[in-house]
Amino acid sequence: MDSPENKDLDFAVIDSHRDKRTGYPEVVFCSGKTTDQAEAIIVRMREQGLPVLGTKADGVLAERILRRFSDAEYDEISRILTLGSVRPKNDRKGLVAVVAAGTSDIPIAKEAALSAEFLGSNVELINDVGIAGIHRLFNRLPDIRKARVVVAVAGMEGALAGVLAGQVAVPVIAVPTSVGYGAAFGGLSALLGMLTSCAPGISVVNIDNGFGAGYQANLINQTTDQ
Amino acid sequence: MDSPENKDLDFAVIDSHRDKRTGYPEVVFCSGKTTDQAEAIIVRMREQGLPVLGTKADGVLAERILRRFSDAEYDEISRILTLGSVRPKNDRKGLVAVVAAGTSDIPIAKEAALSAEFLGSNVELINDVGIAGIHRLFNRLPDIRKARVVVAVAGMEGALAGVLAGQVAVPVIAVPTSVGYGAAFGGLSALLGMLTSCAPGISVVNIDNGFGAGYQANLINQTTDQ
Amino acid sequence: MDSPENKDLDFAVIDSHRDKRTGYPEVVFCSGKTTDQAEAIIVRMREQGLPVLGTKADGVLAERILRRFSDAEYDEISRILTLGSVRPKNDRKGLVAVVAAGTSDIPIAKEAALSAEFLGSNVELINDVGIAGIHRLFNRLPDIRKARVVVAVAGMEGALAGVLAGQVAVPVIAVPTSVGYGAAFGGLSALLGMLTSCAPGISVVNIDNGFGAGYQANLINQTTDQ
Amino acid sequence: MDSPENKDLDFAVIDSHRDKRTGYPEVVFCSGKTTDQAEAIIVRMREQGLPVLGTKADGVLAERILRRFSDAEYDEISRILTLGSVRPKNDRKGLVAVVAAGTSDIPIAKEAALSAEFLGSNVELINDVGIAGIHRLFNRLPDIRKARVVVAVAGMEGALAGVLAGQVAVPVIAVPTSVGYGAAFGGLSALLGMLTSCAPGISVVNIDNGFGAGYQANLINQTTDQ
Amino acid sequence: MDSPENKDLDFAVIDSHRDKRTGYPEVVFCSGKTTDQAEAIIVRMREQGLPVLGTKADGVLAERILRRFSDAEYDEISRILTLGSVRPKNDRKGLVAVVAAGTSDIPIAKEAALSAEFLGSNVELINDVGIAGIHRLFNRLPDIRKARVVVAVAGMEGALAGVLAGQVAVPVIAVPTSVGYGAAFGGLSALLGMLTSCAPGISVVNIDNGFGAGYQANLINQTTDQ
Amino acid sequence: MDSPENKDLDFAVIDSHRDKRTGYPEVVFCSGKTTDQAEAIIVRMREQGLPVLGTKADGVLAERILRRFSDAEYDEISRILTLGSVRPKNDRKGLVAVVAAGTSDIPIAKEAALSAEFLGSNVELINDVGIAGIHRLFNRLPDIRKARVVVAVAGMEGALAGVLAGQVAVPVIAVPTSVGYGAAFGGLSALLGMLTSCAPGISVVNIDNGFGAGYQANLINQTTDQ
Amino acid sequence: MDSPENKDLDFAVIDSHRDKRTGYPEVVFCSGKTTDQAEAIIVRMREQGLPVLGTKADGVLAERILRRFSDAEYDEISRILTLGSVRPKNDRKGLVAVVAAGTSDIPIAKEAALSAEFLGSNVELINDVGIAGIHRLFNRLPDIRKARVVVAVAGMEGALAGVLAGQVAVPVIAVPTSVGYGAAFGGLSALLGMLTSCAPGISVVNIDNGFGAGYQANLINQTTDQ
Amino acid sequence: MDSPENKDLDFAVIDSHRDKRTGYPEVVFCSGKTTDQAEAIIVRMREQGLPVLGTKADGVLAERILRRFSDAEYDEISRILTLGSVRPKNDRKGLVAVVAAGTSDIPIAKEAALSAEFLGSNVELINDVGIAGIHRLFNRLPDIRKARVVVAVAGMEGALAGVLAGQVAVPVIAVPTSVGYGAAFGGLSALLGMLTSCAPGISVVNIDNGFGAGYQANLINQTTDQ
Repeated sequence: MDSPENKDLDFAVIDSHRDKRTGYPEVVFCSGKTTDQAEAIIVRMREQGLPVLGTKADGVLAERILRRFSDAEYDEISRILTLGSVRPKNDRKGLVAVVAAGTSDIPIAKEAALSAEFLGSNVELINDVGIAGIHRLFNRLPDIRKARVVVAVAGMEGALAGVLAGQVAVPVIAVPTSVGYGAAFGGLSALLGMLTSCAPGISVVNIDNGFGAGYQANLINQTTDQ
Repeated sequence: MDSPENKDLDFAVIDSHRDKRTGYPEVVFCSGKTTDQAEAIIVRMREQGLPVLGTKADGVLAERILRRFSDAEYDEISRILTLGSVRPKNDRKGLVAVVAAGTSDIPIAKEAALSAEFLGSNVELINDVGIAGIHRLFNRLPDIRKARVVVAVAGMEGALAGVLAGQVAVPVIAVPTSVGYGAAFGGLSALLGMLTSCAPGISVVNIDNGFGAGYQANLINQTTDQ
Repeated sequence: MDSPENKDLDFAVIDSHRDKRTGYPEVVFCSGKTTDQAEAIIVRMREQGLPVLGTKADGVLAERILRRFSDAEYDEISRILTLGSVRPKNDRKGLVAVVAAGTSDIPIAKEAALSAEFLGSNVELINDVGIAGIHRLFNRLPDIRKARVVVAVAGMEGALAGVLAGQVAVPVIAVPTSVGYGAAFGGLSALLGMLTSCAPGISVVNIDNGFGAGYQANLINQTTDQ
Repeated sequence: MDSPENKDLDFAVIDSHRDKRTGYPEVVFCSGKTTDQAEAIIVRMREQGLPVLGTKADGVLAERILRRFSDAEYDEISRILTLGSVRPKNDRKGLVAVVAAGTSDIPIAKEAALSAEFLGSNVELINDVGIAGIHRLFNRLPDIRKARVVVAVAGMEGALAGVLAGQVAVPVIAVPTSVGYGAAFGGLSALLGMLTSCAPGISVVNIDNGFGAGYQANLINQTTDQ
Repeated sequence: MDSPENKDLDFAVIDSHRDKRTGYPEVVFCSGKTTDQAEAIIVRMREQGLPVLGTKADGVLAERILRRFSDAEYDEISRILTLGSVRPKNDRKGLVAVVAAGTSDIPIAKEAALSAEFLGSNVELINDVGIAGIHRLFNRLPDIRKARVVVAVAGMEGALAGVLAGQVAVPVIAVPTSVGYGAAFGGLSALLGMLTSCAPGISVVNIDNGFGAGYQANLINQTTDQ
Repeated sequence: MDSPENKDLDFAVIDSHRDKRTGYPEVVFCSGKTTDQAEAIIVRMREQGLPVLGTKADGVLAERILRRFSDAEYDEISRILTLGSVRPKNDRKGLVAVVAAGTSDIPIAKEAALSAEFLGSNVELINDVGIAGIHRLFNRLPDIRKARVVVAVAGMEGALAGVLAGQVAVPVIAVPTSVGYGAAFGGLSALLGMLTSCAPGISVVNIDNGFGAGYQANLINQTTDQ
Repeated sequence: MDSPENKDLDFAVIDSHRDKRTGYPEVVFCSGKTTDQAEAIIVRMREQGLPVLGTKADGVLAERILRRFSDAEYDEISRILTLGSVRPKNDRKGLVAVVAAGTSDIPIAKEAALSAEFLGSNVELINDVGIAGIHRLFNRLPDIRKARVVVAVAGMEGALAGVLAGQVAVPVIAVPTSVGYGAAFGGLSALLGMLTSCAPGISVVNIDNGFGAGYQANLINQTTDQ
Repeated sequence: MDSPENKDLDFAVIDSHRDKRTGYPEVVFCSGKTTDQAEAIIVRMREQGLPVLGTKADGVLAERILRRFSDAEYDEISRILTLGSVRPKNDRKGLVAVVAAGTSDIPIAKEAALSAEFLGSNVELINDVGIAGIHRLFNRLPDIRKARVVVAVAGMEGALAGVLAGQVAVPVIAVPTSVGYGAAFGGLSALLGMLTSCAPGISVVNIDNGFGAGYQANLINQTTDQ
């Protein structure tokens, strides 16, 4: 085994051809790795000239990377860490609307938004328009309808996704969040609600997987753009 | 043990004082009893002069009772069987709105409606106003707002309850139904969604328990009436 | 988007018409929001002249609000934070009985009681009358029967709700709590028990959702009062 | 391998020393065996002079055995099949009270009762004393208190066990049943409720395991008798 | 209430503006409705000049509709019933690849394929390329890569979705199926596997929801086409 | 309400007649109560002359009680706190065998043992005889067979209960523990295993409920003794 | 796409290189396929000269295949269908012991045994040696210890696997079965018990997956043989 | 009871004949034992001349043992603690390949690897070859195919096991890990995926049970070697 990608990292094999197969470089899921491991992977990707998106990055890792690379950026709320981006800011395409049901869903909504921006999409982030006061959502529908794809982020009963999918003519990517307590069972209630919605045009990612939704939304948005 | 209520039924003890404690006679949950048992209980209640509400009654039992008692009524869709009622039809009070999300929820919605009517409430039944086309619900809000209590019946993600609770000034009794498949897990998705709704003013009964919702709605409606 | 309610909060949209639709202002669920966010929402609601009910508020937030507003009140046990109330204390209506099965259920029972009082109901709080020594409950039945609605708060098997519903002529709102261990599974045992009770006249809110029960109970109590 | 017990049955090894180790012969759980297998096992036990208790036996097997052995008895409701008994009827000992919450719980309650009788206990079967009308239970407490052990059989929320355990000075063996629907989840609600009851003095057997409860109750009752 | 859509169906409100809001007419989920109800809804939609897609339609309904409408088509395997289509066959756009892991997944895969075709997409259906013999999948990658969106249909561990998402540059819509037994728990294993896949670019619909996947895939494919 | 038992504790109602109904005084489940509440209840019981058993008591509470009452005893491993006992040590009756599968199960086994001793039983505690090396259990069978009732304490697969029940002629009370990880799911695996054991003569208490098992075992042992 | 393996089956791609990669031909899981599909696959494999093992085959399919191929064999109990075998009967290697806990586990045990024989192993099948009468198992240990690998088949609490693994020096492959009711939850109790056993040397296959166990056992046995 | 093994440890019975029955000495599962207990057991095993493998050992225990025994070794990542080994390093046999899907799975993979080495196998550890970039796995297949048994370690959807089993001719032991979040439910998604894989030749151990997999792999590898 002597390929360049695993010359000196015995704990990680950077998938350097991912770019060619899927159009986007590998992303670093930081949680579950030691700070040393995550740092080494980021450094290695940097050496290969790849832009880096780190998700669920804690403050300790962020501090190390910010100190080391002047173009690193870290968002505390979403725990998104970036070095560069797939497209320059002024060359982002289309529009992704990220819609959060409540204030507590913002960290995951921002994770989706920053991920989609990193990958090359324009993003509009719309907060606190849950279904308990549904006019708040309807007030924002004109903005939401400008998007080519909508990301709906909600915990508890997750009903935002179904209501939205009945109002727009584009795909809705639903992100259940672990916001809530008791019978929310860590996001299970929102997950099941989004999966079983009576409105078609919804597909769902893992609980709290803002990145996954941002990635999928960007993929749809970009393909559309070609 | 020689009280009148258990003289000759060795498998059932009719709670003949229930009326005095709770304001309403006992109700016969027919499923799980043999046809002979259910029939014997109904006959015995009739002998005691009590009006009878039988829930989840199958056609075989219904046929027997209809043949035996000329004032018996049976609704095939909701499987509700009645002999008389707590209040005469022309003396029903207040208003309960029973709102069903989809056509498949109608059996349970009718179970709620007929139960509440039997117990003495006026009922308005409103069908197929699920959240995928939410204007259908908004079209009916003026009717719904006339009620003193709303019963929201929905399967799948059960979002109807939360949307309704944000629009009305009265209590919402939510009934999750087992309508749906896959991740609906027999009504679990709707149940969890209704329990964790971000909108206050909702309380929930068991999956497919139309009777329980109609009973609770009538209780609220009647108390209001005093 | 230039409506007054979202002029300067980018993370929250206060539902300032909620009052008109549902009769009560929005409530602040503090858990899951940062202290800064919760504080800003409370300040904004205050500026709009709204009374504030904060639920699941931690001590840090409480201290900040108590320092800032002289009429703020905080109850450590239930973690309820209030500024003003919907009705003045001397104009509360009707009666809600809040009944707690055990000493460990008191925090949630108090959350229900303080919520209902904030919204305008008189409340009687009755503690430690679980079903293991059922005469303790029966001793208190005369008090409980004075209420227009009963809130039953219990963890473990949650049997209090069913026993109560068989003894009173008014609606029972059941609150399962996460009290217990092992097969209590964080309140699941009480939740399932309350949902499947053989006694009608019960509807259930989320595990540990004292506020939701207090809100629903007040709604029933107040409607009754009109 | 040439011991008498497996000479000609290749699908079953009768545990012929069980009697000596545990005081009671093996019992035949008929469900899951083919009719031929169950019949062959019963015939073999008969040849060895053992009394036979068959549980969850269907009508086809029962008919075959009744035709073959004149002293066989079959109870359709509980699906209990017996040939002889461990003690003659007139030599039964002590007293086991089997208490069923509702009419639908009777099949399992009778399974417990007939099992305990087969094994040598006197049994009192008390039906339909669920907690929704708790005076029905209290009316029967004097009878129940005569027993050395109580079997409490209930579906739905299963609260009967906890209420009973707070009223008697002997062990309660609780049997959750699969009676109920929706959130009863096939007996899970009753099972969890019985396991987490706040009243001590309860231990629980499997859902619908009337036999297991009758066996355990007899064991306690008989030991007491020595 | 006098709008045309609910003039004579008391059990259903056809959402006749859905077309304008979302670009596609309502779809009839036949399971859970009576044959009479489903038929009446289809007739009514026909009268309004709408093309009809009926999902999970049983043979009895199909026979009635086929007898009544000469242009009706029914596919027994997928239980898809159509009358007309949103776009004529010769005007379908783009390409959706529907990839089935095993022979037993074909009914759901065909449901996805026929739904996407009805809505206006060209579809390539590729069967039996599960991951146990992964070269079968790799043989078909050139075909799959021609599509603008891929639907991955798999039961059991559902790993097809993750492997595919690592090989293509377009969105993957994953459909878990209930194929499998034991720990497949009715599709739960595939659902959880697809949701938690380490490969980004996947979003998931409900278990056995071929229609939902076909709808979402068409939405992405069509948007792309504009 | 002026009965002696609730004169000055507003958070607890000591069930002072429990003794008469069930033969044993109330027990204090300390977890979930504040230290102040637990202390106050213990002090009050002391004033009423009752012996006190506190379960799941933490070190802070223990220290306070040990300082206050010279006859208090605390066992750190099982977190059992006692003041006096129901019977004096030299007047304990019969024999309960408490058998622990592994070293990690000892805290719960000791909770059972100390509870049964407090209530008046002689106890033999036998450790680390799990089924992986089953001869260790068989070596101790002569000791175990001297008991009138056996408590089997085990986590993981919980097989100890079933093996034991096949070897003894007395009731086995099974205690699943939360020992284990992964698919042990906090004791669920042991709980389900014990409930479904093919060996009759087992009944089960809640996960980690050593006290409940000790209580039930003592009840059986004592009844036997009369 | 013109490879021989999918020339005329549009619903299945026979993995004709499987043999080379894994040492064994593909196996036909018949359940979930239509009879026509299963038959066509078997015919095609036959044409390619491959021996065929069909699992979970129903009687209708079996009849067709038995009529068509004179060397086909069908075992009704295990629903195993074979045409030829990987090794001739007189050239089977080593020894696999398949041990079934109870009579009801025999269908799955036979599925394991016949699968391993088809693939080339000698098999000893040992029935009804569950842990409730553990001497029955110990009587057979000398036979079991002759095997190079042991398959342990058990439902309910599944304890057989752990007891066996503590007694033998070879790998144990555990098969949980769906035998049991109530808290057995379709095999979940046995599955969790086997996964969490305190005895090392066990690995587990899916519930009721006798084939999977036989395949794995043969793999171990054959490798050993080389 | 006077056998040497339990002379002075009252909390543990070392199974000193395990060696003879199963070929390997007992292993110390350190988690759940107090540091004192674990230390005492290790010391006792040392006195009996047994090599020691401690799993899930925390740093505090490790430090004590390293200070006390000069030949002790501790690996922080896998928390494996060893004193000596079953075979000397230069006498290890065969080859076990341990394959980890991602960097976060390395602790469990190393637990498997070090366990197998301790027990006498040569091990090749291969990291970060998850299925999202499947060529990384295919690059390493030549190495993997040299092994007599493969351990596949993966969290999230756990698909690595199924892909591997379709590519090798030896048994795969699958270890689900708790790596992942949301619908990974602590390893449940990987566990179910591995159990239900469509590829035969897989058997599964408990979530995060690296040791169990290493033990089983060594057992297969060693048997093969004889």
